[in-house]
Amino acid sequence: MGMVGGGRGAFIGGVHRMAASLDGEIELVCGAFSSDAERSRLSGEDFYLSPDRVYGSYGEMIQKEKELPEGERMDFVSIVTPNHVHFGPTKMALENGFHVVCDKPLSFDMEEANELEKVVKETGQIFALTHNYTGYPMVKQARHMINNGDLGTIRKVVVEYPQGWLMDFIESSDQKQAAWRTDPKRSGIAGAMGDIGTHAENLAEYITGLKITELCADISTLVEGRLLDDDGNVLLRFDNGARGILHASQIAAGEENSLNIRVYGSKAGLEWHQMQPNTLEVKYQNSPKQIYRTGVGELCASAQAHTRIPAGHPEGYLEAFANIYRNFAKCVRARIEGVNVDPIYDDFPTVEDGVRGMNFIYKVIESGKSDQKWVKV
Amino acid sequence: MGMVGGGRGAFIGGVHRMAASLDGEIELVCGAFSSDAERSRLSGEDFYLSPDRVYGSYGEMIQKEKELPEGERMDFVSIVTPNHVHFGPTKMALENGFHVVCDKPLSFDMEEANELEKVVKETGQIFALTHNYTGYPMVKQARHMINNGDLGTIRKVVVEYPQGWLMDFIESSDQKQAAWRTDPKRSGIAGAMGDIGTHAENLAEYITGLKITELCADISTLVEGRLLDDDGNVLLRFDNGARGILHASQIAAGEENSLNIRVYGSKAGLEWHQMQPNTLEVKYQNSPKQIYRTGVGELCASAQAHTRIPAGHPEGYLEAFANIYRNFAKCVRARIEGVNVDPIYDDFPTVEDGVRGMNFIYKVIESGKSDQKWVKV
Amino acid sequence: MGMVGGGRGAFIGGVHRMAASLDGEIELVCGAFSSDAERSRLSGEDFYLSPDRVYGSYGEMIQKEKELPEGERMDFVSIVTPNHVHFGPTKMALENGFHVVCDKPLSFDMEEANELEKVVKETGQIFALTHNYTGYPMVKQARHMINNGDLGTIRKVVVEYPQGWLMDFIESSDQKQAAWRTDPKRSGIAGAMGDIGTHAENLAEYITGLKITELCADISTLVEGRLLDDDGNVLLRFDNGARGILHASQIAAGEENSLNIRVYGSKAGLEWHQMQPNTLEVKYQNSPKQIYRTGVGELCASAQAHTRIPAGHPEGYLEAFANIYRNFAKCVRARIEGVNVDPIYDDFPTVEDGVRGMNFIYKVIESGKSDQKWVKV
Amino acid sequence: MGMVGGGRGAFIGGVHRMAASLDGEIELVCGAFSSDAERSRLSGEDFYLSPDRVYGSYGEMIQKEKELPEGERMDFVSIVTPNHVHFGPTKMALENGFHVVCDKPLSFDMEEANELEKVVKETGQIFALTHNYTGYPMVKQARHMINNGDLGTIRKVVVEYPQGWLMDFIESSDQKQAAWRTDPKRSGIAGAMGDIGTHAENLAEYITGLKITELCADISTLVEGRLLDDDGNVLLRFDNGARGILHASQIAAGEENSLNIRVYGSKAGLEWHQMQPNTLEVKYQNSPKQIYRTGVGELCASAQAHTRIPAGHPEGYLEAFANIYRNFAKCVRARIEGVNVDPIYDDFPTVEDGVRGMNFIYKVIESGKSDQKWVKV
Repeated sequence: MGMVGGGRGAFIGGVHRMAASLDGEIELVCGAFSSDAERSRLSGEDFYLSPDRVYGSYGEMIQKEKELPEGERMDFVSIVTPNHVHFGPTKMALENGFHVVCDKPLSFDMEEANELEKVVKETGQIFALTHNYTGYPMVKQARHMINNGDLGTIRKVVVEYPQGWLMDFIESSDQKQAAWRTDPKRSGIAGAMGDIGTHAENLAEYITGLKITELCADISTLVEGRLLDDDGNVLLRFDNGARGILHASQIAAGEENSLNIRVYGSKAGLEWHQMQPNTLEVKYQNSPKQIYRTGVGELCASAQAHTRIPAGHPEGYLEAFANIYRNFAKCVRARIEGVNVDPIYDDFPTVEDGVRGMNFIYKVIESGKSDQKWVKV
Repeated sequence: MGMVGGGRGAFIGGVHRMAASLDGEIELVCGAFSSDAERSRLSGEDFYLSPDRVYGSYGEMIQKEKELPEGERMDFVSIVTPNHVHFGPTKMALENGFHVVCDKPLSFDMEEANELEKVVKETGQIFALTHNYTGYPMVKQARHMINNGDLGTIRKVVVEYPQGWLMDFIESSDQKQAAWRTDPKRSGIAGAMGDIGTHAENLAEYITGLKITELCADISTLVEGRLLDDDGNVLLRFDNGARGILHASQIAAGEENSLNIRVYGSKAGLEWHQMQPNTLEVKYQNSPKQIYRTGVGELCASAQAHTRIPAGHPEGYLEAFANIYRNFAKCVRARIEGVNVDPIYDDFPTVEDGVRGMNFIYKVIESGKSDQKWVKV
Repeated sequence: MGMVGGGRGAFIGGVHRMAASLDGEIELVCGAFSSDAERSRLSGEDFYLSPDRVYGSYGEMIQKEKELPEGERMDFVSIVTPNHVHFGPTKMALENGFHVVCDKPLSFDMEEANELEKVVKETGQIFALTHNYTGYPMVKQARHMINNGDLGTIRKVVVEYPQGWLMDFIESSDQKQAAWRTDPKRSGIAGAMGDIGTHAENLAEYITGLKITELCADISTLVEGRLLDDDGNVLLRFDNGARGILHASQIAAGEENSLNIRVYGSKAGLEWHQMQPNTLEVKYQNSPKQIYRTGVGELCASAQAHTRIPAGHPEGYLEAFANIYRNFAKCVRARIEGVNVDPIYDDFPTVEDGVRGMNFIYKVIESGKSDQKWVKV
Repeated sequence: MGMVGGGRGAFIGGVHRMAASLDGEIELVCGAFSSDAERSRLSGEDFYLSPDRVYGSYGEMIQKEKELPEGERMDFVSIVTPNHVHFGPTKMALENGFHVVCDKPLSFDMEEANELEKVVKETGQIFALTHNYTGYPMVKQARHMINNGDLGTIRKVVVEYPQGWLMDFIESSDQKQAAWRTDPKRSGIAGAMGDIGTHAENLAEYITGLKITELCADISTLVEGRLLDDDGNVLLRFDNGARGILHASQIAAGEENSLNIRVYGSKAGLEWHQMQPNTLEVKYQNSPKQIYRTGVGELCASAQAHTRIPAGHPEGYLEAFANIYRNFAKCVRARIEGVNVDPIYDDFPTVEDGVRGMNFIYKVIESGKSDQKWVKV
């Protein structure tokens, strides 16, 4: 694995490295960790990399690595830069024969997204987008149960993602995470809705297997001076007629990272909370609620395959994130070895999910500005 | 207290009786418990009433009780009938000099609501509407803290009220509670939004002290054959600019009676769940979350005044309901005795709240049918 | 009902009155509310009693009420005094033909307890001890499931009752509740173990149907200057060979009233928390945990009979307490009417439970002082 | 790192590998993964090791690695075998100049434990015992707050560790984990008390800074046919006079891995649950309970240093386990580089903790067989 971005002081780069290394299947071999070559070099030292494989730019990295003999060069690129630097390295890596893992959202704007989808198709390279929350075993179990009809016809979905870390105008300080996420030049047209709203959208569609067809959004910037949205409330309609609500916020004082989903069907309901990820509640109207837990009893094959340790030994965010990498790595390995991968592992967010996410962002922002009630997705 | 409705087989009548009796301040002395005189008589026996004070109709009850000497006659009427029988007994009782407690929503339609507001004002009688959820001590504490500025400027409100008991078409069976609530002739123009949506609206405005000024609603009937809405999702805007979401459902499989509210301000957030009513979570971004509990520490005077027993001895729905009755009774007694009531007890939902609730129902239903995004409230 | 004790300033008297009145089956008609006649008189006014039925002593009350014509006199006596004043009024009431409800523990000492058991048997009067926690519907459900074999053979019981309200030496202040509970002249040989340890013991035996046969206790007074125990940890063995732990404390800083029980059998386990009384967790090793809730689904007949309102409308401490009174009242009424009572309602703690509780106190205190490991119960 | 044990089919070996690799500081370079050389070889392939560094026995590994040039040989050995194979490789590794990480409990018997303590002292090598639960950030925070006096004088400790996975006689099947843990020839004199009781003991002493001085235990084998204890209930006394309870079980039906601790002091109490490891409850008698959360607010330096990702991104068991490895690795590196390690990282369970744990096992088993109440520790 070669990494673009994620040098000293970054947050998500470290997450990607820990997630990639967890299962002993992926090794970081090179990187262009910063647009500042010195910073990149120092970061490379932190990771015990050979200095000649620490590059000053992603362009250099892709070029030089490509020149290395097969078997020595990196197998794929991991892109952990801010949104406006997703497109460049992704496109170049794909076109030079490297597979790609890219952080979400897919790109800076819709045009880039569509172009990337085209490039993935044309090159045939493997591409994964790290909507990491779908990597949790209990998300797999929820998806399985809904797909299996255990909830009956889905009627209502409530997905929410409140955070509070942007409740003050911290982008004026030197908080790097806040700075780029609230900057239209680096983040794109959306703030909270792009950063976390898309996670909520992706999770709802992944778990239910439904597609959002219409939405009506109230998008706000509640902290004075901020340039992008920090709160959004959205009415949803799904392709089977189900109703829904999505709300995401980064000004919800005291909330950490509270991605939650409730799904109600004609037979049963379910509820999952990212902050208690090993628990899935399945609710019946006329019998006891059932608490499914990672590692307990007869979970679906996918839930089991995405669990590493026994029940009661809590797995968390990094393990779910690692599931995305592990599955991606298995697919890359199968490609290299010319074999088929077990379908259970051919399960990670794709460029199509990325395009859907970008489209969601665009429609939500459009709706937020519109007097018309419903916007088609 | 004389009661209209609430005979054998009713649900809410028993609640009103238990709530009224809890503090030893109110005695049921007469009633017209059913439009069926024999059923009314049998119900009277159940309650150990003197047979001559069990009446065949509310008209008879009000007439006969009025003829009794002062001090013997009932002091007030409690009206626990379906919505279409709120207006008649309320108006007649008020106009004949009786105070009134009435179940929510205020009336069958908007016209009745406006008329009742006028009658209350003209007669000067005391009127209480049983939006009972505002009777919980921790709701008082939440209201106090927001009013006190502890949360800063309120920016976002999420209020939700999912139930699942109407997830099947049970109105076709002999479930009395379902039958009238889903019948436009008895319930009015709304189903779930009238039955529980108004509770959510009332709670949100009571706790925050804000008023809803605009809304955008997606109102649905998700169970086939049903005549009124059973699910509603609403975007809210408040008079101070705060954003909000209200969703209520009676088809949320596996949900019991899950009225919840989260409020986020510029300083802190809070969260309260009706099903864990003795707990109030107050959330800070950069310090530990605080768990306020009934009976623990220095709660506001109102929270203390609405708590009966020590911490850890859970009080519930009936005790909160009893708080409405107890406060109402204190006001009635003060009126009779010609003294002032302690302002802490002059705290129960009024006819104005009832009119606001009816208006909310009308606007929500209107919005649900509209292509226009925002409807002014 | 006539009451002994429970005048102004008392805690448990008010609980008994609210519990007794909740169902409209019991009316407070007289009382000797205080050993101070003036205080008793004022308390009688608070409760709107006829002055001629407010007595200066329990002796006077029992005497005078007995002289009233049948049908006018009180049907039973409720005794809510400190422990050292249980024996006198209970014995006198029973011997004068009144049924009795008495607060726990049964008496000041073992000798009194044995004598009361004899008197109850000899007089044949109905006697209830308010181990109120067994009145919760979910306690009934737990007992039913264990009795039904749903948990298999019971192997282990963990019952705990931490409180924190005596963590400081508040008996030196004017806290009346603390003063008598820590006073050997009023409380008896035990403090915390008598006040709450017996509740834990009673709950464990009631739910499991097992009897404690041996125990080994570490009994401590952790607050300096206190005259009775404020903390106790006890190893238990039950008559079927099951192991157990009971711990109770009144110095557990920050604990409210946290009576909890976990029972583990050869097939399944269960867990119940008094502070979340409407929930019963049933745990399986190889399938999802099930959350039983008051009012949801097919609970046992007894759980249903001890529930008043629908699921999600929380019932609490007073309702459970009222279940003791309601059942007692039904038995008294059946006795008066010469009919049989439905066995579901013939369910409240008896004088035998009271004797067991007193014996438990004695054995625990004995064990606390002993170097020998096991004390037979 | 070289590993002893942990080949195909093992549980804890994989945990150690994931934990070691998480931070990119430790690389698995060699191993003797099984006493079966072929199995060891295959396991080596799984981990992409060079075949010449996959050994058939730990003796061979230590010998051969020692012969490698400094800088090429492994820096330390990780021992993840059953208890009866802790002593041999640990002693040999230490005496041949390798540092050691060893799984708990320290050894098969007391004699080995004492000998290992001597060897560690004599060789001066660095030794870590993986009482991994002390690696959680909130355990660090709890320890800090108690040490800081925030709870006042500690009065009571309740530590519990119920599991249910041995509720049936599964050692008769081919469950490898069950087989050796219930076999006196491989596990030692204790079953549950050695496997998990020592974790509870270690956690209680680590968090409180107190030492257990006396205990009284009821130790049982509740599953027929089992050769070692599967349930234990223990009264504790600590060196400051505090009282305590420790109970551990592997037959607690439906329990996963529920290590919990509550500590009560003269000022406040606290509570931590391993299955919700990012939360620490701090309880006050007269003010709101405070919920400390990983990543939120001003936690102690150690809690912060043992947290990898922001609040609300749950870290779990592997991350806590990795903290032991990371700290150990930092100490090893500092030793190699001849520098001092930051005291925050010089924090992992030592051989002295291991000896204390073995002594605890011996005293608990002794007490379980004794008629005497208290056994000195």
